[in-house]
Amino acid sequence: MRDEARDADLTLRRARARDVADPLTAFRDRFVLSDPALIYLDGNSLGRLPRATPARLAAVVGEEWGDRLVRGWNDSWFDAPDRIGGKLAGLLGADAGEVILADATSVNLFKLSLAALLARPERHTIVTDDLNFPSDLYVLHSAAALAGRPVTVRVVPSADGIHGPTEALAAALDDDTALLSLSHTVFKSGYTYDMVALTALAHRAGALALWDLSHSAGAVVVDLRGADADLAVGCTYKYLNGGPGAPAFLYVRRDLQDMLANPISGWLGRADPFDFALDYAPAPGIRRFLTGTPPILSLAAIEPGIDLLLEAGLERLRERSVRLSEYLIDRWQERLEPLGFRLNSPRDPARRGSHVSLGHADGLRINLALIHEAQVLPDFRRPDNIRLGIAPLYNTFTELHTAVERLRTVVVEGLYRRYDATGLAVT
Amino acid sequence: MRDEARDADLTLRRARARDVADPLTAFRDRFVLSDPALIYLDGNSLGRLPRATPARLAAVVGEEWGDRLVRGWNDSWFDAPDRIGGKLAGLLGADAGEVILADATSVNLFKLSLAALLARPERHTIVTDDLNFPSDLYVLHSAAALAGRPVTVRVVPSADGIHGPTEALAAALDDDTALLSLSHTVFKSGYTYDMVALTALAHRAGALALWDLSHSAGAVVVDLRGADADLAVGCTYKYLNGGPGAPAFLYVRRDLQDMLANPISGWLGRADPFDFALDYAPAPGIRRFLTGTPPILSLAAIEPGIDLLLEAGLERLRERSVRLSEYLIDRWQERLEPLGFRLNSPRDPARRGSHVSLGHADGLRINLALIHEAQVLPDFRRPDNIRLGIAPLYNTFTELHTAVERLRTVVVEGLYRRYDATGLAVT
Repeated sequence: MRDEARDADLTLRRARARDVADPLTAFRDRFVLSDPALIYLDGNSLGRLPRATPARLAAVVGEEWGDRLVRGWNDSWFDAPDRIGGKLAGLLGADAGEVILADATSVNLFKLSLAALLARPERHTIVTDDLNFPSDLYVLHSAAALAGRPVTVRVVPSADGIHGPTEALAAALDDDTALLSLSHTVFKSGYTYDMVALTALAHRAGALALWDLSHSAGAVVVDLRGADADLAVGCTYKYLNGGPGAPAFLYVRRDLQDMLANPISGWLGRADPFDFALDYAPAPGIRRFLTGTPPILSLAAIEPGIDLLLEAGLERLRERSVRLSEYLIDRWQERLEPLGFRLNSPRDPARRGSHVSLGHADGLRINLALIHEAQVLPDFRRPDNIRLGIAPLYNTFTELHTAVERLRTVVVEGLYRRYDATGLAVT
Repeated sequence: MRDEARDADLTLRRARARDVADPLTAFRDRFVLSDPALIYLDGNSLGRLPRATPARLAAVVGEEWGDRLVRGWNDSWFDAPDRIGGKLAGLLGADAGEVILADATSVNLFKLSLAALLARPERHTIVTDDLNFPSDLYVLHSAAALAGRPVTVRVVPSADGIHGPTEALAAALDDDTALLSLSHTVFKSGYTYDMVALTALAHRAGALALWDLSHSAGAVVVDLRGADADLAVGCTYKYLNGGPGAPAFLYVRRDLQDMLANPISGWLGRADPFDFALDYAPAPGIRRFLTGTPPILSLAAIEPGIDLLLEAGLERLRERSVRLSEYLIDRWQERLEPLGFRLNSPRDPARRGSHVSLGHADGLRINLALIHEAQVLPDFRRPDNIRLGIAPLYNTFTELHTAVERLRTVVVEGLYRRYDATGLAVT
């Protein structure tokens, strides 16, 4: 026991040394850290608050809305969706004019998947997988139901629930496939698809490829241009730190923009919206995929988070994310695997995003104990995944070390027995 | 000239006396008034900033997002769309559980109009009018194109561009009409339909009635229950003072909720969304009309404005709106009609919302001069409408008096000649 304490102290000191040596660690101080004891490992669900955001938002509220009133639309709001989208494009390997902020991810997925179906009228299948975010499947079914012909959503199963079924997807793509739609990094296991390879497979079949980048944007190097990707959507409130429910983004490759129609034609997607003409004529370029008026306060809050990522540099952040994730997996192997924790994420960092899922038969109860007894905040995804999100801008080696030790304590000391599977404390 | 100055002074003193006598005038101080010289008559485009809003938003950002992080969803965010919708229901003559905040108005209109078309599969027509907000017409065409059968959008013309064509609408409704969709108060002339009568006409034809309440909510007494209205949508950034692009609302009468399907099935509209099941099962009640994650910052900013309206009382506000509008029209008749200004709004207050449109052959140039030379901020709608919005919570008799005098000055002194029709200053 004394040996174990000495070991733990030694490994903790090593973790601290790694933090001190890493130049990106300094970015942690650019976030609000109001509870220093909290180890926040859910940045892949809701990113932390950048310190610059409250002042930015106060200015938007007080000066832009309060003082300038409706003139704010001409000052800056009207252009905000494509201006901020242009910055975000730099994190996605896209060009300005190919990315725009709009609506929620599900609404954008609906618009782009239905646009794709309407652009491939002779085809009857959408191909996806069962690792996709469930809402994406619901939306693909919605789009399929409105395509004006029978369209089947073919959900290709993963063999192990962890790795994307690339070969089975390749086999499923054929000349009746209109669209391949996948989460680039899947929400449960963190598996990341090879976007270049899968997009090429879709194109070989004559299908369009639509990527949900929600769990990739800001943490994984995405190269939409290099992959020749057709369409993409994603949220901004995870690794982009845009705030709860912040408006989503959509990407349409430039040469496709004027060939696709937005199936929800609204005034902001019209050429000259202030003309208020009774007939619709789509705006040129990416703005045609807008529909209604964007929520400016939530939209403005996205920008400081994107600026931080651009300042740190995505390649460097990705390297740090891999270092942190590999460290966490090393610690899992040494300290948690003996206690029955399984690695429910890919072992290969090239195929893994920025979160690590650990499975355990008592996963739900362990997760509850972790939150309520141990000041660690991950999240939980059924049936047994404790999902540890690693935001390379603010999570540290020290945090991961401590989180693993606390996970151990929760199991070894039986703290999880205080909770039942419905989430209620039983003692 | 000395007589005219004396008259102007007298009428100004009378306006001030009316403000002093009106108990609702005090609500003006509940708004940020950073430029006391500005006469803001565009609250029907973007409502002023309530003084309570910046602190509320700072708390949402700092405490809810910054401190509580992802736990904010369980604390309050998850329930916010229906909780705030329940308050808003009190301003619309609806019940809690019938109104929810979601998406943009155009997206909500798409969802509800398409849901209506899918619920009336044997019918082939949507009836609307040419006074409707153009975006509503675009969206109705979008929904019609996706209904799985030929659907015509029949746009009934107004005879004079001011009054809603009630009789022609009645004649257009027949047993092939799936949906009657109208703006309750129209954006250009401010005409307000008789919701009871028009809904009854739709029902007599076996059609559903969908009302866009954007220019009514918070300024006109809306009684969805009394009218037995089926569906409604609207924005929250006009008379509700919810902030630029604040999330919109939708209403579905309770007995219809479980009979209609949301055509954009997303995770937040699912029964038990945190189950993350691969198959969609709609939530019971109004939440099934949600799709994606709502923008919490913009959503939270809506509540202080709604609270102010509830505190003032909508009936009292409507009475004040009518008093102010009638006063403005009296002043127009005395001071502006002789200069060539026409009243492009209904004369009957029962058929008029809370804005007054004045037409003038040089309307665009007069509007520009008014903004840039006279500290009055209305807005302009082609071809010739200077639209004067009256927000009964903060506009005053004195402001309207002064605005009319400044309109006069702009014309009498020829200030509008400094601008050309493209909006550029020519001197």
